[in-house]
Parts: sequence; C-alpha cells; structure tokens
Amino acid sequence: MTKYWSDVVRTIEPYVPGEQPQVEGLIKLNTNESPYPPSPSVVDVITRSVIQRLRYYPDPNASALRGAIAEYYGVEPDYVFAGNSSDEVLAQTFMAFFQQPEPILYPDITYGFYPVYCELFGIEAKILPLADDFRIDLADYRQSNGGIIFPNPNAPTGLETPLEQIESLLRDNTESLVVVDEAYVDFGARSAVELVSRYDNLLVVQTFSKSRALAGMRVGFAIGQPSLIDALERVKNSFNSYPLDAIAQLAATAAMQDRDYFDECCRKVISTRKETEQGLRERGFEVLPSKANFLLARPPESLSAESLAEALRREKILVRYFNKPRISDYLRISIGSDSDMQALLAALDRIMSS
Amino acid sequence: MTKYWSDVVRTIEPYVPGEQPQVEGLIKLNTNESPYPPSPSVVDVITRSVIQRLRYYPDPNASALRGAIAEYYGVEPDYVFAGNSSDEVLAQTFMAFFQQPEPILYPDITYGFYPVYCELFGIEAKILPLADDFRIDLADYRQSNGGIIFPNPNAPTGLETPLEQIESLLRDNTESLVVVDEAYVDFGARSAVELVSRYDNLLVVQTFSKSRALAGMRVGFAIGQPSLIDALERVKNSFNSYPLDAIAQLAATAAMQDRDYFDECCRKVISTRKETEQGLRERGFEVLPSKANFLLARPPESLSAESLAEALRREKILVRYFNKPRISDYLRISIGSDSDMQALLAALDRIMSS
Repeated sequence: MTKYWSDVVRTIEPYVPGEQPQVEGLIKLNTNESPYPPSPSVVDVITRSVIQRLRYYPDPNASALRGAIAEYYGVEPDYVFAGNSSDEVLAQTFMAFFQQPEPILYPDITYGFYPVYCELFGIEAKILPLADDFRIDLADYRQSNGGIIFPNPNAPTGLETPLEQIESLLRDNTESLVVVDEAYVDFGARSAVELVSRYDNLLVVQTFSKSRALAGMRVGFAIGQPSLIDALERVKNSFNSYPLDAIAQLAATAAMQDRDYFDECCRKVISTRKETEQGLRERGFEVLPSKANFLLARPPESLSAESLAEALRREKILVRYFNKPRISDYLRISIGSDSDMQALLAALDRIMSS
Repeated sequence: MTKYWSDVVRTIEPYVPGEQPQVEGLIKLNTNESPYPPSPSVVDVITRSVIQRLRYYPDPNASALRGAIAEYYGVEPDYVFAGNSSDEVLAQTFMAFFQQPEPILYPDITYGFYPVYCELFGIEAKILPLADDFRIDLADYRQSNGGIIFPNPNAPTGLETPLEQIESLLRDNTESLVVVDEAYVDFGARSAVELVSRYDNLLVVQTFSKSRALAGMRVGFAIGQPSLIDALERVKNSFNSYPLDAIAQLAATAAMQDRDYFDECCRKVISTRKETEQGLRERGFEVLPSKANFLLARPPESLSAESLAEALRREKILVRYFNKPRISDYLRISIGSDSDMQALLAALDRIMSS
C-alpha cells in the first residue's frame, strides 16, 4: 500500500476466482467450464485473414454478435448488450442501476462477486439468508430495496427458482430493477428472457463461459428492454469503447449460431450430471438437485469436505471448497466429461477405502 | 432514461470514439491504427488447438504476456499490469489512484476519455491550458493536486514533452501519482519507463493498438513500481478476474517478442510521416511537429477544416475533425501506408483546385 492509493483500493476485498493451475493431466472440476470444446464453427471463423486485419479496431457495437443473440432469443437487437464476460456485464449493471438510496438485496449463499461490486461502487446491500433447504424464498424480497439480484440456478447450490415465482416478484417489485444472473440456465432451468418484453424492471445476464464453451474468450451479455440496455451502453462507453475484441465477437457469434452443437453439449452435461449425482449418493453423499453444470455435495460424516478436497487434489482432481458459513461441509464439483466423472468416483472409492 | 438508472448514468457524457464504418475501399486515417498487419508470428500462435482449448478460463494473471513486456523493457514482471486495452487500464488507474481530496490535473487539449473517467468515478479535475504553441508546460503542474495525467506524445497534437521535464516534475511532485499515457511513444518519442525504478510516483501506460498493430485485439498495459501494480490488480480483481482472453494474451505476447518486425513498422511510419508532413506543408498546411502516428494539421485559410473533412470523406478518405475550442481549425490525420498518404495528397490537390 502507498499514499497514492484511492481509499476504495485500501479497503476492498477482491473476488477470488477458482484456481487455474497449469499442470499436465489434471482433471479440472473446480471452475464450471465446459467438458467439450467450442463449436467447430468457432475454429472456422478465426482465419489467417481475420488475424491479419487485427490492426483495425473492432466493431464497438458488436452488431453481428448482438444480432445472433437476438435471433436466438427472438428479441430485437436493441434488447441485447454484450460485454467482456458476464462478470464485466454484472459490474456494469451494478454501476448503472444499483447506486441507489436503498440497499440492494441478494442471498447469503450466492455468487461471490456481488459483495465485491458493492464495495467497489459504494453500494449498500441487505443480505437475505437462503431457506434451510438452500432455496431462495422470493417472499423475503418483498421489501423496500434499491435493486434485487440472484443467480438462477443459484451458485453454488445449483437450485432453480421457478419462473412463476420470479414473474410474481416482477409484478410486485415495480420500483427497482430485478437482475436474474443466468450463467448456468442452459443445463435444465427455464430462462426469464421470455419475460423481458412484458417487464421493464427485468434484466437477464448470461455468459458464453459455460454452456457455450468459450470461457477462454470472455464474452457475456444482458437482455432487457432498450432503456436498460441504453444505460449499460452509457456505462460501457464511459469505460472502454471496444470491450470485445474482433476475434471474441466472431467466436461468440459462431457459437451462438450453432444450435445443434450447443443442444448436444447441454444434453450430454445433463446426462453426465445425473449419473454423477447417483454415483455420489451411492457413496453416502448428500447431493442438492442441481440444474447447473456442477453439483453441491456433502460427503458422508466420516469425511470433512476440506480434507476430501485436498485428497482429491493429490489424485490430480480439482474441486472447489468454500470456507464459508453454511456451505463449509460441501464441495462444489463441476460436471466434466463422462470419463472425468468416472475418474472422480474411482478416486473417491480409493480415498474412502484407505 | 428510466427510474431504474443510477444518477451517474443520467448525467455522464460517454466518450465518442472515431468512426468504424464498414465500407469497402475506404482509406481510414481517423483512428490512428497501424497501416501494417500485426507480426506474422501473431498468426502462427493462434492455432486450431488453441481455439479448441477455449473452453478453459484464461490465465487470470496473464503471466506470459507480462513476462514478455517485462523482458522488452528490462523490468521485473511485478512492475507490469496488463488489461483489456489501455482505455481500460486508464479507467482502472483513475479508480485506483485518482479518487482523492484534491483535484487531478490534465491539459485542456488532450485525450477525450480523461473527463469521462472523472465523471464516471466522481473525480474532480483542474484543466490546465496548453501553451500557445500547443506544448504542455509542466511548470503549470507545480501545484497542489490529487494526481497528474498527460499523454506523451500528447494527442491530438503529437507533440512530445521532453523526458528531462517529466523527471523534474517527478522529483517535485512527491505527494501524488504522475501517469504518463504513452499510447504513441513508439513513433519517435522517449519513454518514461526508464524512470520507473527510481520514482515510486510514476506510472506509464501503453497500448498494443498503435505501434503493435493489434487494435482489434484490445490489449494495454501499465509499468510502475509493484505497490502501484498491486493497486491496479486489486481493482481488476474486483471487476473482472480474467479481463484478457486466451487469444489476446497469446497474440500480444507474440507481438511483443517480435522486435525486428516492430522496429521495421515504426521506422516505416516515421518515414511516411515525414513525407506526408512535407506534402501538407507544400500545400499550405500548418503542421505540428509530431512524434506520433498522426499529424495535427491546419488547412490554408481558404479551406475550413470541417468542410475539408467532409470533402475527403466524399473521396473515401476518413480523417478526424474535433469540433472543440482551439483545435476546430485543425484535422488529425493518421499515418497510413505510403500509398494511403499519396492518395490523401492527390485528393487534397483535387479538392483544392476545384
């Protein structure tokens, strides 16, 4: 720390992402990436001639990409905002909408970046506990607020909040924005995008890092009515006019357009999740019913979650352990390929029998 | 505008970047891009197998890229911060260092993003006029302040502030940070990077968008002592853990390592700039002595800068006109290839003789 730092930098606790070790032969089940490569069409659009044209600035409006997202969801392109990862879109959302006199509301067990954005932008938050079964009870959110945000499915629980409950909240919460963070929605949950045309107080945020297998490319987006998109554009154009590079725009556009490949990958993840869930239950784990590409699972009482994570690491399998109230007995396990998950179960058998 | 917007979004005036029209056969001399493609080695590192691995998150610390920048400049890697364009690095710099009780100082004619960042983060600024010959007089900056920032060479004047004057400022201005924005330094000016080891109050910001021909890839960086880099890391990790995608990291690393190609491209731009400057002077233009890859030039009195920009546009040549006090009689002309600049001079001859 030096005297040159702004105050906010002194006090802020940055978000800690899942580890990205560069070790050969590691099975990475800690950061919810896709077990499958991006659509083959992504490879085809990144050509030598595209790379040679990188001397030009990219399209600041990401028009082709926004058009592809709009077409996929059956909305107009002015309902779509695109950014350099959904984390950045979320940060811009907090800046654009949540700097309000009233505190915003979000769950106690949820995505770890929300409190960091609050601190960064000086936003007050009221944190509402999940129910005992880890579900979000939207009845708790019927109170005066400066905004509401929650993931659906929630992370790291994987639990879905039914769309009917979200729509009921939207009908009642008419004075502030409701943001539904759908990073994991494609693995079996129902998207709130179908509600955006009817509710001007709804913004849906999604990512290309999970179901579309482009975590390395950093692309996220938001869908909402044009007045909301306009606010995000104003923040974006006050920070970085061209947040999405030319190759990211091409890659994400191609990934969004290849529906068959996307559907097939999501279907496989759902099928592998089901088998993994069963395998864990057979080994005495309690497993929450996930609609995401990960499982939150509690090992049998003889094993602590923390020491099990360490034992798996020695077996070259990374899972995520959160040293946090309420979930410190659980592990979050990303759904890898079938063979990754068979390796996980075999490693568990070795650890539990030793 | 809706009731959901934060106050800052209502009042802010976003930055307006140079136009990026998608017209065939246009000569783009309006956004200071490189006339040459990126190093051939950039093409070679973006392979099919790299693209197929995009399902994984990129290295959050951009270690290889920071190592390549450190090696180029002969500093340790912990002196280097990398981000998604120098615009974003500048925004993070304003957030990390310039939220202070005293106003920051910058010139009246300079990069248009500085006032936008001030508004976005609630930073007060005291704007100091350039001298009559458009030079930055650092004597004016000897006053109480919360930080100082200026480009070197300055934009859109292209004028260099001598390094001795910058070092003298660093010796005196010991209570706040001095940021030297070196977007255009590689075209003949002297970098302040050689001073960072001796001054803990100096941060140098550079970009890959000009001399390294990667505007489409969005990569920028800052060099300063580790306590400064640490502050930027804290802001970055509170906003987006992985701002640089995997391909941007590979491309920028390759571009930084190919010194011969870089030197050759800079040499060609400098040579073309000299010829263009002479051609403009022969046609009655007043031209500022630029150390950047653009010229700020005033047409002869019979021609207004604004109408000349329009006439050039009809000839399919884009240059940048700023409708701003002090420079509204000037055009900013990027240095393109030799044939681009010959086309510009030929178009000027046609316009001036009609």
